[in-house]
Amino acid sequence: MLDRFKVPEKDKIYISAEKISELTEKLFKSAGVSDEGARNSTNVLIGNDLRGVESHGVSNGLRLYLGRYSSDSYNPKPVIKVLRESPTTTTLDGDGAIGTEIGPMAMEMAIEKAEKHGMGAVSVTNTGHLAGCGYYPLQAVEKDMIGHCFTGSPGGQTLPTWGSEPILGTNPVAWAAPADKMPPFLFDVATTQVAANKIELTRRTGAKLLPGWIAKKDGTPILDEIETPQKGNYHLLPFGGTRENGSHKGFGLGMVGEIMSNILSGAGPGLTSNHQGSDFFAAYSIDAFTDVKKFKENMDLLLNRVVKSKPATNYERVVYAGYLENEEFIKRSKEGIPYHKEVIEWFENYSSELGIECNLR
Amino acid sequence: MLDRFKVPEKDKIYISAEKISELTEKLFKSAGVSDEGARNSTNVLIGNDLRGVESHGVSNGLRLYLGRYSSDSYNPKPVIKVLRESPTTTTLDGDGAIGTEIGPMAMEMAIEKAEKHGMGAVSVTNTGHLAGCGYYPLQAVEKDMIGHCFTGSPGGQTLPTWGSEPILGTNPVAWAAPADKMPPFLFDVATTQVAANKIELTRRTGAKLLPGWIAKKDGTPILDEIETPQKGNYHLLPFGGTRENGSHKGFGLGMVGEIMSNILSGAGPGLTSNHQGSDFFAAYSIDAFTDVKKFKENMDLLLNRVVKSKPATNYERVVYAGYLENEEFIKRSKEGIPYHKEVIEWFENYSSELGIECNLR
Repeated sequence: MLDRFKVPEKDKIYISAEKISELTEKLFKSAGVSDEGARNSTNVLIGNDLRGVESHGVSNGLRLYLGRYSSDSYNPKPVIKVLRESPTTTTLDGDGAIGTEIGPMAMEMAIEKAEKHGMGAVSVTNTGHLAGCGYYPLQAVEKDMIGHCFTGSPGGQTLPTWGSEPILGTNPVAWAAPADKMPPFLFDVATTQVAANKIELTRRTGAKLLPGWIAKKDGTPILDEIETPQKGNYHLLPFGGTRENGSHKGFGLGMVGEIMSNILSGAGPGLTSNHQGSDFFAAYSIDAFTDVKKFKENMDLLLNRVVKSKPATNYERVVYAGYLENEEFIKRSKEGIPYHKEVIEWFENYSSELGIECNLR
Repeated sequence: MLDRFKVPEKDKIYISAEKISELTEKLFKSAGVSDEGARNSTNVLIGNDLRGVESHGVSNGLRLYLGRYSSDSYNPKPVIKVLRESPTTTTLDGDGAIGTEIGPMAMEMAIEKAEKHGMGAVSVTNTGHLAGCGYYPLQAVEKDMIGHCFTGSPGGQTLPTWGSEPILGTNPVAWAAPADKMPPFLFDVATTQVAANKIELTRRTGAKLLPGWIAKKDGTPILDEIETPQKGNYHLLPFGGTRENGSHKGFGLGMVGEIMSNILSGAGPGLTSNHQGSDFFAAYSIDAFTDVKKFKENMDLLLNRVVKSKPATNYERVVYAGYLENEEFIKRSKEGIPYHKEVIEWFENYSSELGIECNLR
């Protein structure tokens, strides 16, 4: 993440991953979620926080999700059903489960299929927020596979190139692949210029938005650096920003995500169908294509070549997707995760209301 | 494509797809390529020209490819070998075949596997230029499947974000999906700001390059509109252009392409391995996931919603990936393909040298 999205130094409180995980799991269970469901969701959210992807960790997500359990938008006790199945594919009805509960299970199913048949994919419909796509492909990496994930949402956030009506969600996408000695490759991005959650983070950090990040209500890209407008007063742009700068590529990839999740799962277009979201999880067995050892050695060659390459003038180093996240993971695993003090105060107040012990600091 | 890449009106000569195909096939055969190989390569190149993707048609490609047959860089009589196979996957050694010959066969194999098992993927190593990725996924669309293709090259063209040493090729990627009444979705892009071939087209059309499209030799993005620099005096930028505008997303997707083609095929990183390129072709049976009729109806809903949405101020209409290409396909199928007069002159001269009849106009 760019520095402008990070928590300002003066507002940071460091909490160990163990402590925040333990409390997060308790809060999910307080909403009626099963032990496994609470563990899955906690692993996804704290996994994101550990990798420095706090836009998709507990800070923005948890209170929102708990509110959705309270309002019956999410089902804490889902009965997940298989809608269709082939040797390599499964389509699941998530019965209103949050994505972070069903996602790790779905990716596990895709991995099992890939172990048997070379590739596996699981499509999930009738499910809630996935908290980004980055966590799930890493499950495949643990098994020497390439992991991949698309997710679609109800839409209505992101403009098409040349358009003024927001149609897609931020439709994130991720791929991950293992290396031998180098940290794994993990490409995990929103198909918008900026994830919606990151725009919301700026309200807490006070950072400005850069030129070409969002558009006016009439679809015109805003090409100045601005304060974050009020919700409802702007639209998200697909990544690229303007057509001349390649926003048709961002919108096109967002459409691929929409098709592979909302359409392939049978849910229908996010904008015109009444559903909360759907996902696509895929695993590719490296062994089905080539020698795993050779693959990982070649990954090391590639990734090392990037990291050791000469930076552009005025830059310090060159990295690949997942490299900085891995550094952050190691650092935060040791030092704790830096949360904004308001987030910790929320945890304390919310736990106190429920009578749950909270000894974060 | 942006207007600046198109052939200027005064230089256009319209040739029917049949005539240019017939001659192109003859020229491939004159290089020793088999009937099937010549037909495959011709279908790919003229297919691109018909869709208006002339950056990847005969204009730039054919003389280059014929030169490579002459210099023994491409093998006109490849003996294609299966290196590894699983129920859903095959890895092929292309024996130096041009990508446009082996690509249509490889995608056909992926489709057959997807018909049997739900998904299929074919990885190809030791192969030449694929002429973009767009043609192949459309083969899957014909069979009511989702098609997908990555291709990797020898690299050394595209900078990483913050970098000054070009590492990746332009690593294009494509997905296609069928609709019912609407033209199919076809997302087909280079992971650079601009395809290398399009930069070369500007030398013929005289168009300028836009801000953020390429970088100086030290890695600094050029943020002015400029004449196309001489070959060797610039580097390509990943799409997004600058980090602030999301070039890490472009570079990350380029890396995914590199991993799924050059690394997964066993060829090794384009830049550090001595090979011409490798590819990844995948087909997903829609029927394995959901009802095909419902999928296509939902595609119509989505695609119609995009096309009928209100344009941004100062724009005339909103489209999705593949929509304009389909319009162009219909138009060019009727009116002929507009080639630059220099291209037609090359066809005439080259055919004459070989004693091949050429009655294009």
